[in-house]
Amino acid sequence: MEIVGRSITRVDAVAKVKGTAKYVDDHFVPGMLHAKAFRSTIANGWVKSIDVSKAKVLPGVVAVITYEDVPTHTFPTAGHPYSKDPSHQDVADRNLLTRRVRYVGDEIAAVIAVDELTAEKARQLINVEYEEYAPVLTAEAALQPGIPEIHAGTGNVLGRGGYEVGDMAEAVAESDHTFVDEFSTQVVAHCAMENYSAYAYMEENGRIVVVSSTQIPHICRRIVGQALGIPWGRVRVIKPYIGGGFGGKQDTVVEPLVAFLTTKVHGRPVKMELSREESFISSRVRHPFQFRIETGVTKDGTLSFRNLEAISLNGGYASHGQSIANNCGTKFRQQYRQKAIKYSCKTLYTNMPAAGAMRGYGVPQAMFVMESHLDDIARALDMDPVEIRLKNIPETGHKDPLNGIVALSNGLKECLVKGKELIRWDEKKAAQANQTGTKRRGLGVACFNYASGTHPVGLEVAGARIVMNEDGSVQLQVGATEIGQGSDTVFSQMVAETIGIPLSMVHILSEQDTDISPVDLGSYASRQTYITGMAVRKAAEEIKAKVLEYAWGMTDIPAQVMDIVDGWIVYKHNGEKITPLIEIALDAHTDVVHAKPFTADVTNNARVNALAFGCTFVEVEVDILTGKVEILEIYNIHDSGTIVNPTLAEGQVHGGVSMGLGYALYEQMLFDPKTGKPLIHNLLDYKLMTALDTPEIGAHFVNTFEPTGPYGAKALGEPPAITPAPAIRNAILDATGVKFNDLPMTPQRLIAKFQAEGLI
Amino acid sequence: MEIVGRSITRVDAVAKVKGTAKYVDDHFVPGMLHAKAFRSTIANGWVKSIDVSKAKVLPGVVAVITYEDVPTHTFPTAGHPYSKDPSHQDVADRNLLTRRVRYVGDEIAAVIAVDELTAEKARQLINVEYEEYAPVLTAEAALQPGIPEIHAGTGNVLGRGGYEVGDMAEAVAESDHTFVDEFSTQVVAHCAMENYSAYAYMEENGRIVVVSSTQIPHICRRIVGQALGIPWGRVRVIKPYIGGGFGGKQDTVVEPLVAFLTTKVHGRPVKMELSREESFISSRVRHPFQFRIETGVTKDGTLSFRNLEAISLNGGYASHGQSIANNCGTKFRQQYRQKAIKYSCKTLYTNMPAAGAMRGYGVPQAMFVMESHLDDIARALDMDPVEIRLKNIPETGHKDPLNGIVALSNGLKECLVKGKELIRWDEKKAAQANQTGTKRRGLGVACFNYASGTHPVGLEVAGARIVMNEDGSVQLQVGATEIGQGSDTVFSQMVAETIGIPLSMVHILSEQDTDISPVDLGSYASRQTYITGMAVRKAAEEIKAKVLEYAWGMTDIPAQVMDIVDGWIVYKHNGEKITPLIEIALDAHTDVVHAKPFTADVTNNARVNALAFGCTFVEVEVDILTGKVEILEIYNIHDSGTIVNPTLAEGQVHGGVSMGLGYALYEQMLFDPKTGKPLIHNLLDYKLMTALDTPEIGAHFVNTFEPTGPYGAKALGEPPAITPAPAIRNAILDATGVKFNDLPMTPQRLIAKFQAEGLI
Repeated sequence: MEIVGRSITRVDAVAKVKGTAKYVDDHFVPGMLHAKAFRSTIANGWVKSIDVSKAKVLPGVVAVITYEDVPTHTFPTAGHPYSKDPSHQDVADRNLLTRRVRYVGDEIAAVIAVDELTAEKARQLINVEYEEYAPVLTAEAALQPGIPEIHAGTGNVLGRGGYEVGDMAEAVAESDHTFVDEFSTQVVAHCAMENYSAYAYMEENGRIVVVSSTQIPHICRRIVGQALGIPWGRVRVIKPYIGGGFGGKQDTVVEPLVAFLTTKVHGRPVKMELSREESFISSRVRHPFQFRIETGVTKDGTLSFRNLEAISLNGGYASHGQSIANNCGTKFRQQYRQKAIKYSCKTLYTNMPAAGAMRGYGVPQAMFVMESHLDDIARALDMDPVEIRLKNIPETGHKDPLNGIVALSNGLKECLVKGKELIRWDEKKAAQANQTGTKRRGLGVACFNYASGTHPVGLEVAGARIVMNEDGSVQLQVGATEIGQGSDTVFSQMVAETIGIPLSMVHILSEQDTDISPVDLGSYASRQTYITGMAVRKAAEEIKAKVLEYAWGMTDIPAQVMDIVDGWIVYKHNGEKITPLIEIALDAHTDVVHAKPFTADVTNNARVNALAFGCTFVEVEVDILTGKVEILEIYNIHDSGTIVNPTLAEGQVHGGVSMGLGYALYEQMLFDPKTGKPLIHNLLDYKLMTALDTPEIGAHFVNTFEPTGPYGAKALGEPPAITPAPAIRNAILDATGVKFNDLPMTPQRLIAKFQAEGLI
Repeated sequence: MEIVGRSITRVDAVAKVKGTAKYVDDHFVPGMLHAKAFRSTIANGWVKSIDVSKAKVLPGVVAVITYEDVPTHTFPTAGHPYSKDPSHQDVADRNLLTRRVRYVGDEIAAVIAVDELTAEKARQLINVEYEEYAPVLTAEAALQPGIPEIHAGTGNVLGRGGYEVGDMAEAVAESDHTFVDEFSTQVVAHCAMENYSAYAYMEENGRIVVVSSTQIPHICRRIVGQALGIPWGRVRVIKPYIGGGFGGKQDTVVEPLVAFLTTKVHGRPVKMELSREESFISSRVRHPFQFRIETGVTKDGTLSFRNLEAISLNGGYASHGQSIANNCGTKFRQQYRQKAIKYSCKTLYTNMPAAGAMRGYGVPQAMFVMESHLDDIARALDMDPVEIRLKNIPETGHKDPLNGIVALSNGLKECLVKGKELIRWDEKKAAQANQTGTKRRGLGVACFNYASGTHPVGLEVAGARIVMNEDGSVQLQVGATEIGQGSDTVFSQMVAETIGIPLSMVHILSEQDTDISPVDLGSYASRQTYITGMAVRKAAEEIKAKVLEYAWGMTDIPAQVMDIVDGWIVYKHNGEKITPLIEIALDAHTDVVHAKPFTADVTNNARVNALAFGCTFVEVEVDILTGKVEILEIYNIHDSGTIVNPTLAEGQVHGGVSMGLGYALYEQMLFDPKTGKPLIHNLLDYKLMTALDTPEIGAHFVNTFEPTGPYGAKALGEPPAITPAPAIRNAILDATGVKFNDLPMTPQRLIAKFQAEGLI
């Protein structure tokens, strides 16, 4: 391969660096109105009365809309493909504006004004009287009988799930040791550079156009249609460049409301841009989990059974809800071989911001509990942590007993071997035995598996359209969204590779428009390269076949013996040049008899999945006195099949590991236990990793080829964020002998536990 | 047919009336620079020296570009499909800026500034010294030996053409009478409501984006590529709503220069909007023709031979040039049956604005000479003008001996019969015999034929893409441009009709973008309904077939026995409803196994043509003393096959007839015979028909069905403008007995000739 596999500079690099790439806020629309939501200041209760009279008369205010003005039906917000099967549909528990408030920040009313400042002022002129209930912030509170339900009829249980595979009784009987422990993870926020922002207006035919920073234009269109109760084809969603999403924009946070608001002002454009504070408290967060894990092993460290119980707290609305707990359980199962495995989970409503999709989708939580627990077991058995993993990982060809996915490529063993080498595991392990100082070093490892897309749970449709110009260059359109991950570049490489033209002759349309772009479900589930890539490759193959067929007509040389290489039609057997591609493309545009410009408009229903694997190796130095954890070395080693663009892949790993480091050590949204008010909702208080906090990150890949993927590729987007936390936790354990089972592992927590365990 | 044939309100009506439809000038681009051309003040000569120093230092001026800075190669500007055959390519005689000036207004330099006013001021600070030659404004002057050629090596002859069919000697011998006469037509301007306007900028990958008020986005892309000497795929042309074109924007007037200018300012957006004055003097005009015609008839009025000699004056540059004289000759030939026919023409360079395409493309000139001359013959033979036409028009099935087009539908006879009835021809003829007062009434008639597109001279490729949404509604994309003629509405009707859905479920994308829109050559040659309509219908048929095939899978009812009617899948034999379309469309978007959203991306190479026919009947009252001609009644009767939208068709006729009235009576661009300076270049001096000048216009259609056309349709766009002039000329002759052989027939000219002929 000439172009796939090369570190091409990303196609949007210059535009993004120079600031010429246009984001939602770069769009200037004359007459734009600005909306601000009036948000609940209590976590749980309902609005007894609302007074918008002062807001309405403020000069510059165009309209004030309250819960009284919105449709009464509820809608879902999660960015999942629609299913006609009601049991497979997302929970519809939202109104556009609500009288029943379920978290601090819930949207009660919206002000539309001629500018943002006026809207902000008017928002402050709204008065409400609440009836307030005690906030529900924990699983215990949620399940307390007799309290007002957050959503009527649910008992505050959004969903339950689980499975049991294998003969548990036999597996338990065969175990030499059984280990039980508990773990928990925290609430974190996506913190994409670009906040949630969208505007909407109406076309003169009554259709609603939404321009949004979204990962999922086609799904967003459907949800807006549902929310407003109008046919989905009456909605058009346009997605310009986007400043990150990380799953938060795989949800409809502002689009349904902004689409509704324009209908209340005769179709005038209405924009709603959440501030950073609003993005923290009123978008989506990562689900906090509580785990109880039980593992049986034989004395040689072979896993005999595993049993995980999970409680996921979902906040005030369903969003992706129970799906995340389910995914947590799936990856828990697929990680290792065992005789029997059991998973049970429930997802509870609480009075916190709704939890939704976030990079890893429940798997950072799953891997934190199981990879931490596994190290505890290894320690108890006096086994090397790498050794116990190598002993239990499944081989290539392993078939998942529940979803039937066969791992046709599995480089996890190579990842572990490579990581061990990179960090000089054995050498350091020996050197670091029996440390006693105040600064102690330790090594940690953690493994993960991750899927490429959502099959067979979810639909995996993707489309690609290619048109060839007179000069042989092409335009590529996809419905999948470039959200910073580099998919536009990867798709361009695939097209250039497949057709046989230089990359400079591939022009990708980066903006998605549901009126025009091929149908695609969007960017999530690490699906772009793998799922959309299949459609892109198919479209490029179709174009190539059409070119060669046409060339046959012009040259009398059979299509089967020709190829396209670097913009030339050549003989396949020896590469001899026949004619430049431009001669074919130009003829196909201009020949009075045969003209038929080459296009391909392809939809692909993938119906496959592939497991990506990998691991983190880390060396830390723990300052026992300050509780500070310094990352000395960190390596993420990935089996993501063929790496289409090594530099971009490395970038994904850097970003993901950085996110994983924050998850491990710093990030947490805190809420006042009495009132449910968020205590941290800005980037000053919320400890996001900065460039200065980030150590050098080693990104490495092993060579595998995934037969179901385009060019052998499989998922890479989310995996890097998964295992830094358990690897660091295990390294701290290695350094100090102290187990930390709750995230994040902040200095305060370390100090407290070091004191409790008598280290200081 | 349910929807085709109905007077649907045009799809863009509300947007255009409310002003929400976006034209080039409605696009706001931050940092837009403005360019003004520095234009020649002499008609013929060259620039000895240019001093731009003062302009360059004016604050706000970003760059001054002159003829020294542009590529030296020449390029063509006409909006024709490209041909690889050099003999079929347009004449490439332009530079982006020129030292050799060829008309008053020729572009020597361009100023780029931060705003339009600064650009205008800077333009006035440029000084040039000319070497001046005598302006060439007539055929005689152009062909004078020894004068400096306007384009070196041409002898000022841009092209020659003609043909001879049949046995001329025999036909001459059989003639009982021979008539010879001379005619001439004037220079007129298109006067589209929106002047020529475009802006260009560069994408960060170096591609140039041109946003233009153009009829021909795909061709414009090619010409910009040629002009700048870059691969055509490096150019992207976007066409928003457009305020009329009439053929003037079937040419690249501002696009190549504006595309070049952005490359000189690092890709910053540069806009160039011609003022009304500039649009008059420096865009394109209608070719003035001089004719000599000779006709032989037998005594019963049967045409035996015809012979037309034409000289067309083309101005300083080729543009469409000789093509227009050729088209004049083709329609001359196809109008009537005769034993032998001869045509010879030449197109000459002069020092006037370049003549290009304009509604009718040489045929208003052709019909003026032949239909006027025919009335003179009828008068000499004492035959009724309708009678002589009926005697000589070809029957359905007539095959053109040169281009092979067979008229498979021909309603000209019905048009003549209907027009005669409408105007009460016989009754009025009798009443108006022997008038003697100062106000005399007369009746006139004139016929035309016109083609539907350019086959077999030109390529006729068109494309259409349809995507169906989950609710069964569709988006339609075409590369053909809505330029006010209503094509977007007509295409939408075709799609609704073909698929079987209400019109409200068809959403057409009105904006063309060469990166995305299906390849189409643009809006010209009255080709949209006929040529693009074929592609639209094909795409809709493909969608329908896919829907029914999918429905087969869902219902087990064979696709062949089902139909789609008003958004329902029904049994074909009795219309019984089976399932709503939305069920099929939604399933095709969501079924985990079979999902494959319906799309069709169709290119059609038409390779057919169809002749449209029609005639004008008019009654005038001529005031002998003032020379004023009042239109008492006027009817245009058209055979355009199936009329897809009667109200829109009527609108086309109203606009075209109004244009024809101005051509007949008022409009003319005049030039100072000594200097070549245009004397009329604004809407105050140029007598464009206003609403108050326009009489009630009767638009009528006869029923024919064109088998090659979509739903039986054929051309209508240009035909209405063709025959008002000869019909009025014939009516004035009928009223006064005086022949007017030169257009326009202004009061001054009438008075002069009435005096010369002794009427006053």
